[in-house]
Amino acid sequence: MTVAGASPSPTARRGRPGYDQQSVLAVAVAAFNRYGYEATSMGMLAEELGISKSAIYHHVPSKGDLLRLALDHALGGLESILDDPRAGEGAADARLEFVLRGTIAVLTERLPFVTLLLRLRGNTEIEREALERRRTFDRQIAALVDAARQEGSIRDDIDPRTTTRLIFGTINSIVEWYRPGGPLTADKLADDVILMVFDGLHRR
Amino acid sequence: MTVAGASPSPTARRGRPGYDQQSVLAVAVAAFNRYGYEATSMGMLAEELGISKSAIYHHVPSKGDLLRLALDHALGGLESILDDPRAGEGAADARLEFVLRGTIAVLTERLPFVTLLLRLRGNTEIEREALERRRTFDRQIAALVDAARQEGSIRDDIDPRTTTRLIFGTINSIVEWYRPGGPLTADKLADDVILMVFDGLHRR
Repeated sequence: MTVAGASPSPTARRGRPGYDQQSVLAVAVAAFNRYGYEATSMGMLAEELGISKSAIYHHVPSKGDLLRLALDHALGGLESILDDPRAGEGAADARLEFVLRGTIAVLTERLPFVTLLLRLRGNTEIEREALERRRTFDRQIAALVDAARQEGSIRDDIDPRTTTRLIFGTINSIVEWYRPGGPLTADKLADDVILMVFDGLHRR
Repeated sequence: MTVAGASPSPTARRGRPGYDQQSVLAVAVAAFNRYGYEATSMGMLAEELGISKSAIYHHVPSKGDLLRLALDHALGGLESILDDPRAGEGAADARLEFVLRGTIAVLTERLPFVTLLLRLRGNTEIEREALERRRTFDRQIAALVDAARQEGSIRDDIDPRTTTRLIFGTINSIVEWYRPGGPLTADKLADDVILMVFDGLHRR
């Protein structure tokens, strides 16, 4: 697993001697999701990696930095969708579909990182900053939903806030069950979600 | 807040001296959802209620019993939907809609209890038993989805397992944001979810 779009380095593979920040981060995120951030110690991560505690500090100054890097990987992926010209040009409906497909792609590619982001409770300053970035992202999607409704492509008998929450609920719940590498590819999953959300499950 | 369909007793109101099992349970469920089951002690619940620890044990023998009662309240509500004749008679599509509306009603009426159920990790025997009951409920919905697909009312270009997961994801995510007593009633929410899931958000 690599982060921030970096290509895999030879030392990034798990289970091999010699770790880099990326591989330490992957192990940390798995532990945060499993035991909770508070309950995870640098000692536990060192043991998991089979290295000394001081060796971990060689890669990252603190547990908080691991959390910050992990959340930034999830948020950076989501934010970059909105930087794409396809998120800003053309009909709101097509822009909304582009952004939702992008969100599903980031979610499936960076599954443990987005899982961590979605489970945040905001107990620390790092978490609160990440939640604020997530809210900013959510508000931009809500604005797209509003625009699609105003252009007449989205139904107006559901409150726009409910519409946005149902869309997010459907997409975010994917982290609870989707496992990459199985028979359902990320692309087919995105097709399925877009189909249900926009056209519904009823056969016509 | 009352449980197991009991009507509110005069002693069930919070903030009044004199508690019954129902009100102790309501406080316990709120604490379990906030701090986690493991991290919640009977001492914390006593403090929250403003009563002594021994007074709590007068109402319920152990913390595990509070968890079991809480999960049974959520599961009992869900299971009773399937006992209704409308869940078993007529077209599969109408039966599925009835069951989904019922699920949303239980979820909104027993919000903290269903939230607790949905966040279970299965660390204890009580949790594992509840998860098994939940899986049985989920399997019955999956069978209804299959039946609706076979009768031709539900689209067949999405894998039935994906269909079921997306429906559950959409409905279960309601616990993350819905707050009873606001402008969105539980009935309107159920209409909205059924509309999006079956007919889609696109205007036609």
